[in-house]
Amino acid sequence: MELSKRERSLVKALTTRNGRRRSGCCRCEGVRAVRELLDHFPQLVQFTVATERGLAALPGVVPQNLRMVDEKSFEELSDTVNSQGILAVASIPPEPAEPVSGDFILALDQLGDPGNFGTIIRTFRAAGGKELWYTKGSIDPWGDKAIRSGMGAQFGLNMRRFETLDELAKRAGDCGYCNFFIADPHEGESCFTCPGLFDHSVIVIGGEPNGVLGGYAPAGKVIIPMPGNYESLNAAQAATVIIFESVRRKLAGEPC
Amino acid sequence: MELSKRERSLVKALTTRNGRRRSGCCRCEGVRAVRELLDHFPQLVQFTVATERGLAALPGVVPQNLRMVDEKSFEELSDTVNSQGILAVASIPPEPAEPVSGDFILALDQLGDPGNFGTIIRTFRAAGGKELWYTKGSIDPWGDKAIRSGMGAQFGLNMRRFETLDELAKRAGDCGYCNFFIADPHEGESCFTCPGLFDHSVIVIGGEPNGVLGGYAPAGKVIIPMPGNYESLNAAQAATVIIFESVRRKLAGEPC
Repeated sequence: MELSKRERSLVKALTTRNGRRRSGCCRCEGVRAVRELLDHFPQLVQFTVATERGLAALPGVVPQNLRMVDEKSFEELSDTVNSQGILAVASIPPEPAEPVSGDFILALDQLGDPGNFGTIIRTFRAAGGKELWYTKGSIDPWGDKAIRSGMGAQFGLNMRRFETLDELAKRAGDCGYCNFFIADPHEGESCFTCPGLFDHSVIVIGGEPNGVLGGYAPAGKVIIPMPGNYESLNAAQAATVIIFESVRRKLAGEPC
Repeated sequence: MELSKRERSLVKALTTRNGRRRSGCCRCEGVRAVRELLDHFPQLVQFTVATERGLAALPGVVPQNLRMVDEKSFEELSDTVNSQGILAVASIPPEPAEPVSGDFILALDQLGDPGNFGTIIRTFRAAGGKELWYTKGSIDPWGDKAIRSGMGAQFGLNMRRFETLDELAKRAGDCGYCNFFIADPHEGESCFTCPGLFDHSVIVIGGEPNGVLGGYAPAGKVIIPMPGNYESLNAAQAATVIIFESVRRKLAGEPC
């Protein structure tokens, strides 16, 4: 089928938060992102737009409601410089119904940069993480840039949004995740030796260093040792160090 | 003194590679980047442009050849949305004369993205790294974006550029760095257990996985374990995991 005028407008509108809010949809561009979407939420796909080239990059896959377009038409829709010739429009996934699982919850507090947010999502997914929670004031992880930076890894995680860090902490506690840690650039226990860091815990990145979570529990501070004495890493790098320390401990058979 | 017309043109020209090549200068914007520059290469500063606000953010520092401007004039020169009101124009540092030192050399091969390059520079600096080498085909680390992403950390490292990975390997070998590792997304020894990974070694990020370095030495492959089974991390995240594994081993007193 051809891409209708209405669909074309929708694809363009979805680059704005307003467009996503009105339609309840997001756009998911690139081979990897579309594959993640189809693997995890095929039922959410409204339609897929592809060129011959884009479709060829997904062998054996028949995307729903496929609209074939030529390269020139695709470039007009694409938000990237070198497009991969494929994008899908999907309903934004609802809050996951499945119970909270995994060793620890990664919580992003008021993380404003879509590139950082996307990178953390992708890294957490690569490390086998499951629960990625975030607070209001963070960038929309279903935005175009965050999905591209995350390469659609958001579709493979349980993404849960909370109004405040307090509410997040309460929910985590209710689910049995009772150890709270906040990554702090200045002080705290080393992420390489901190006991129980990944044992049914919540690790907050980007949070207020002196925050107390919900009156619910005081948070331990965890620091990434920096022998270079060069202040803080950016949020994505800090998250990466912590996430892969969990991988290392697990593979080494050390207590988590 | 006032900012001259010639200086104003130079500041603008330095956002392009051509402008940097012609003048041999780079521009260094933001409080942190300017501080790094002044700490390590004050003699390279040609002039500094600042607003009252920008200068106030560097207490106790008197930048060379200071040109005070108002906020509006600064915005016209700035390459950022929310400027910090300070930038310096400096000669691009020459190849460092000091001998090669540090536990390992981090080598970036044909790394094309300035954000990634800058992030790796900053992360390596934070971890106490010293030698950051790169090959032709990489983005210019003295470009505006790379300096901003790196927050000027390039001024605190020994940055050395090579025409090819072969030449890089030869030079490293001549300096006693004889163990070569290439970060590979698909196979290799785990970066968490690989012996000698940081023992007078060269670790290549972004290199051709099957490359042999200069006929000089075959490179070992090192992999970042990814339980999520989600292909590769981006170059900056991969570098971050490896860089901080070196910090962890050192702090734990494990063999490097």
